[in-house]
Amino acid sequence: MLELGTGSIAIVAVIAVIALAALACAFVLRRQVLAADEGTPSMREIAKAVQEGAAAYLNRQFRTLALFAVVVFALLFLLPGDGGVRLGRSIAFLVGAAFSAAIGYLGMWLAVRANVRVAAAAAQRGGRNEGARIAFRTGGVVGMSVVGLGLLGAALVVLVYRENAPVVLEGFGFGAALLAMFMRVGGGIFTKAADVGADLVGKVEKGIPEDDPRNAATIADNVGDNVGDCAGMAADLFESYAVTLVAALILGKAAMGERGMVFPLMVTAIGAFVALLGVLVTRVRGNENGLKAINRGFYLSAAAGAVLSAIAAYVYLPGSFDQLNGTAELGEMNAISADPRLDAALAVVIGVVLAGVILWITGYFTGTTSKPTLHVAATSRTGAATVVLSGIGVGFESAVYTAGIIAAAICAAFLLAGGSVWLALFLIALAGCGLLTTVGVIVAMDTFGPVSDNAQGIAEMSGDVDEEGAKALTDLDAVGNTTKAITKGIAIATAVLAATALFGSYADAVERALGEVGHRGSGLVNAMLSFEIISPVTLVGVILGAATVFLFSGLAVDAVTRAAGAIVYEVRRQFREHPGIMTYEERPEYGKVVDICTRDSLRELATPGLLAAFAPIAVGFGLGVGPLAGFLAGAIGAGVLMAIFLANSGGAWDNAKKIVEDGAHGGKGSEAHAATVIGDTVGDPFKDTAGPAINPLIKVMNLVAVLIAPAVVAMSVPDDANHWLRIGLACVAAAIAFGAVIASRLRAARADQESVAAAEAEAEAAAALRG
Amino acid sequence: MLELGTGSIAIVAVIAVIALAALACAFVLRRQVLAADEGTPSMREIAKAVQEGAAAYLNRQFRTLALFAVVVFALLFLLPGDGGVRLGRSIAFLVGAAFSAAIGYLGMWLAVRANVRVAAAAAQRGGRNEGARIAFRTGGVVGMSVVGLGLLGAALVVLVYRENAPVVLEGFGFGAALLAMFMRVGGGIFTKAADVGADLVGKVEKGIPEDDPRNAATIADNVGDNVGDCAGMAADLFESYAVTLVAALILGKAAMGERGMVFPLMVTAIGAFVALLGVLVTRVRGNENGLKAINRGFYLSAAAGAVLSAIAAYVYLPGSFDQLNGTAELGEMNAISADPRLDAALAVVIGVVLAGVILWITGYFTGTTSKPTLHVAATSRTGAATVVLSGIGVGFESAVYTAGIIAAAICAAFLLAGGSVWLALFLIALAGCGLLTTVGVIVAMDTFGPVSDNAQGIAEMSGDVDEEGAKALTDLDAVGNTTKAITKGIAIATAVLAATALFGSYADAVERALGEVGHRGSGLVNAMLSFEIISPVTLVGVILGAATVFLFSGLAVDAVTRAAGAIVYEVRRQFREHPGIMTYEERPEYGKVVDICTRDSLRELATPGLLAAFAPIAVGFGLGVGPLAGFLAGAIGAGVLMAIFLANSGGAWDNAKKIVEDGAHGGKGSEAHAATVIGDTVGDPFKDTAGPAINPLIKVMNLVAVLIAPAVVAMSVPDDANHWLRIGLACVAAAIAFGAVIASRLRAARADQESVAAAEAEAEAAAALRG
Repeated sequence: MLELGTGSIAIVAVIAVIALAALACAFVLRRQVLAADEGTPSMREIAKAVQEGAAAYLNRQFRTLALFAVVVFALLFLLPGDGGVRLGRSIAFLVGAAFSAAIGYLGMWLAVRANVRVAAAAAQRGGRNEGARIAFRTGGVVGMSVVGLGLLGAALVVLVYRENAPVVLEGFGFGAALLAMFMRVGGGIFTKAADVGADLVGKVEKGIPEDDPRNAATIADNVGDNVGDCAGMAADLFESYAVTLVAALILGKAAMGERGMVFPLMVTAIGAFVALLGVLVTRVRGNENGLKAINRGFYLSAAAGAVLSAIAAYVYLPGSFDQLNGTAELGEMNAISADPRLDAALAVVIGVVLAGVILWITGYFTGTTSKPTLHVAATSRTGAATVVLSGIGVGFESAVYTAGIIAAAICAAFLLAGGSVWLALFLIALAGCGLLTTVGVIVAMDTFGPVSDNAQGIAEMSGDVDEEGAKALTDLDAVGNTTKAITKGIAIATAVLAATALFGSYADAVERALGEVGHRGSGLVNAMLSFEIISPVTLVGVILGAATVFLFSGLAVDAVTRAAGAIVYEVRRQFREHPGIMTYEERPEYGKVVDICTRDSLRELATPGLLAAFAPIAVGFGLGVGPLAGFLAGAIGAGVLMAIFLANSGGAWDNAKKIVEDGAHGGKGSEAHAATVIGDTVGDPFKDTAGPAINPLIKVMNLVAVLIAPAVVAMSVPDDANHWLRIGLACVAAAIAFGAVIASRLRAARADQESVAAAEAEAEAAAALRG
Repeated sequence: MLELGTGSIAIVAVIAVIALAALACAFVLRRQVLAADEGTPSMREIAKAVQEGAAAYLNRQFRTLALFAVVVFALLFLLPGDGGVRLGRSIAFLVGAAFSAAIGYLGMWLAVRANVRVAAAAAQRGGRNEGARIAFRTGGVVGMSVVGLGLLGAALVVLVYRENAPVVLEGFGFGAALLAMFMRVGGGIFTKAADVGADLVGKVEKGIPEDDPRNAATIADNVGDNVGDCAGMAADLFESYAVTLVAALILGKAAMGERGMVFPLMVTAIGAFVALLGVLVTRVRGNENGLKAINRGFYLSAAAGAVLSAIAAYVYLPGSFDQLNGTAELGEMNAISADPRLDAALAVVIGVVLAGVILWITGYFTGTTSKPTLHVAATSRTGAATVVLSGIGVGFESAVYTAGIIAAAICAAFLLAGGSVWLALFLIALAGCGLLTTVGVIVAMDTFGPVSDNAQGIAEMSGDVDEEGAKALTDLDAVGNTTKAITKGIAIATAVLAATALFGSYADAVERALGEVGHRGSGLVNAMLSFEIISPVTLVGVILGAATVFLFSGLAVDAVTRAAGAIVYEVRRQFREHPGIMTYEERPEYGKVVDICTRDSLRELATPGLLAAFAPIAVGFGLGVGPLAGFLAGAIGAGVLMAIFLANSGGAWDNAKKIVEDGAHGGKGSEAHAATVIGDTVGDPFKDTAGPAINPLIKVMNLVAVLIAPAVVAMSVPDDANHWLRIGLACVAAAIAFGAVIASRLRAARADQESVAAAEAEAEAAAALRG
């Protein structure tokens, strides 16, 4: 067992103080945002509706999830292990979940206040740069809070639990990931149901602009941007941060002992500094493109992070592995990888470079001036079908390159370690930390998107912004589209790195459990333990892991399609029953659409959530720890490709539409435009519901696997193991996951019936009109 | 080393005779088909154009592929191993490729003659059942030829090479799979480029029916059905048959010695009998649905196959493993799995049941009366975007269930073996053979689709069929849609079973090579050898394997989109420059469109083909045999889901369109109909180009891995291994695969330019018309 020395404790304490300082910076930035002008009364009124809708949704969501969290808390406590550590882990789970929820709420709370201020700024002459500043500062607040809370949580756990910190941290990461997944799915369904529903009736059927106040779904659309793109995204990035840090700490302890556990905290503390730097230096100069300013901030802070981390490695880590007071594996490493300082510094640099490359690739495949997007836009001349097909082609291809780059980063970290698996896993986790030194800026970039999108909506609805101001907001919105796609690429990269590293913790947990059981079985039990990919049951695990990703994505897309259908009928009904809406004489009932979105997304988030939590349990107890490892590998492999495919094809469709709207291939109102609108609508749930939720999905499944591994071994290996109890548990887990899917199918059937009824009502009304 | 006894040789000789008998049956059935009436002169004229186009395409394709085959022949011969066996394997490769090509050619040759006869039969009063009989008999010819040639090839190799047969058979399977993959890709691009191009201009823009003779792309569309759906499919199923049989023979030898090698041949010989039975008993009674008759034939032959195989197991195999003269592993097995007869019989039954379940699931998700398809049809009321989204949801979900069932079959076979890996792999291969006892009927079912589709086209174009006859042909066509989807599900199931079983040969090849090298490395070399999924580099292999499936699918979809775009511009040009076409005064230049399809599909098939062949070589030599195993696992996991997703979402869209055309949601000509036409067009390259090509893709990559494994070990493990040469080889392979992708991108850019030029010409013409 490892005891932390006084020096290390002092350093961790300093890091905790840095975390508090980051939170203080967030508070100062927040005051700056709130100090800006709140705009005209009409703007304030609209903003108030959005604020109320968003707060009401999140409050209801948290009430639903609180129950779930309590159940998981109890289940976690029931898993085998030392009592104190188990309790610590369960409490850390609640803290991680609470932090995740708090970050999400903060993101939403500030965004709904910032967007009206951005709109107000744009209403002023030459207010574009001021608007960009407010939007980016808003992101800065969330970014600094993500960094501060993540670092604070991890540092506190290390200070309190010392050598047991890794196990307790698993709880922290799990809580953060689980809550983030629910917020991603729920918020994602809300935002895209409202968006798709609003577009289908407004843009496609009625030919009125986006965010037109006559459309009953506009307020819901704006609420959705805040609960999905702001709250969900913030929680998701917090979770990425927490889980990567957890993996690095666990593996650092195994690979480099005490200093290995402290060093990742140092890297992320440096991340807090450079995030602040990035937020402060990002300032739009004169007439330059907003994206250019953001990229400058990103690259500057990434470079600073890499340099500072390298310095930290050379100052803090010793020059050879002999000097690290660590574990048994160290002897093995000395021969190969001579200098831990160089290894650690290069690993961080690999992560930083990976972030930069993903930024570039994503920009290439989804930017408005790049070949692939121009190609998708060009296919609009032959109709919607070719737009959909070319977008899918672009998505598939870009996913392959991004996955290839992530794979190359893993290989590079692995080569650094010279064949030592534990060191390799630690370096991969460190690369993840390097990637995350940029997370502060990334969050700021991503929040920029929905805030400027919403500001545009408020400006449009209030009618208080002149043409110049509207143009400024449209520019900001287009920048936001690209930054959003970039964030998703980076988030999924952290998922792959963290998951790969967590495989180490998983194997470690299995090995330790086997040590306690003191026995390796034979025959079928061996197959349950086999990590060998060529074992048929392990291969079955791979297939099931990939299948879970497909099912999860399908459920998310389906949920949006269904909820959007309900909204279409509601908006059509309002237009039909209140003809005054179209002539601005009547005000649509915005609240009804918000209610439908709230109801549907809360109802639909359970199924994918239960699937993610219970599928690994069913596979683990049913087939064993070997197939469960295969399951995770299949989920990672299919997940990374699916996530990037969904994000990038969605981004390409969105910007192909913008290209046509800017006048290419016939411009607005042409048939080509209608074709790209269909493409964009298909892309909506791809890029904002299913795609981004795969990142926390992978981490949740990984952490569930790490948590249950000892129980699975204890129930399957000993000669007197109660296999029926184990199989019973697997069946219960499978029944819960499968039951959730069936329940979702039944709801789908009811929704189909309701839509038929609504369609009949429409037909009757049409007949009455003619009659 | 195993010497085959005289008894076994006699049995194999009898099996070879049975194979010849199957081919004789095919010849008799062929005469029956050709004896039918060839129809009116106008029908014959159209059929002649289709025949010429199809033959010209396949001849050009074979010329292109012959060069490729010669290169692979040489490369195969250069791989390490015993000289005589290497030569045998290389020759077997050519034979496998030639058989695959011959089956494909036969399928096309007969289909283009059968479809005019089916049209002629439908022109007669009450000719529906006669038409169905001809269409199904045509399939019977191809089915019996598939079975006969596959069995003949395998039996001859066993007779000639005896104990070395497994190694030689790898060549046979590889040749069959490689050629089938090219035919699937090339034919798939041809058929869907023509179909999509024809629909986009004809149905969507001009509002004329499918197969209207005024559409310049109709002949190409009909040619495509024959070179893609007939030739490609026949080669694909032959390949499935050959590779599964090869896997079973290799593993049978390892698990049960001599009898284990002969028994799979017996099962497939039984498959030949029951296929003939199925073809002969399938007869449409009175007014019954064609699908019902086909299902009856399928279930009857499946049941007969299961019963006869079980009898064969009990007659031929001994009652305990002690009595099998076999290999070293046998001792280990006795303890667990007592009765080889029961094991073998149950494994075959598992395969047969799997085929039945896939038949049912596919019917449920794509049938015109099932809930999921009705749901997709219902979403047409809210536009094309929701149709696309709901179809994708249905595809994802159905893929999960089908993959789950295949996984369950693997687990069941594994449980039967009681933990013995070799026996488990053999039983999985035997389950594949069981699945394939139904292949004769399956081929017959699948050929039914394009033949009746084409017959409908010929009837429509000739105008010589009255309303009743047209209705009969539409019915047959709808049945064909479902049978096509079922075949794809079964084909991909054989891919998973064969690939899982081939993992055994792979591990065996690696082990033997390691034995020869006499040394296991350390450090990085250990990572290259690690089959453990938790090794980061092996996980990288999984990601790259999944990525290859995504890239391959994206390339196939892109190729169709691009080629279809060229056809759209060509058909539009003909309508524009020859206004007489629309008034039936001018005849469109069908040949031009056929030429474009031929040129484009031959050009585009190279990229996915080279990717499939060289990606595993790059991974194997670059990262090692362990990551290569991970690569295969990732490709299998992602591949099975992707293949079924693409096939079933395509099938659901196709039938959702039929539901609307039959009058639901507004019927033909409504906005809902336009929405489903877009969905169907998106589904075309999904279900007929990318989806079905994944099946041979997986097998090609598996067999490449098996073939190169010894070379990889020899070049990476010994202390004096030349790692630079190995890495150089990996780089060359990666450069070829990547270069092919780049070349395809450059072509895409040129195609974009051409389409812009064509669009400008259109705009000019429109301006001239106005001016």
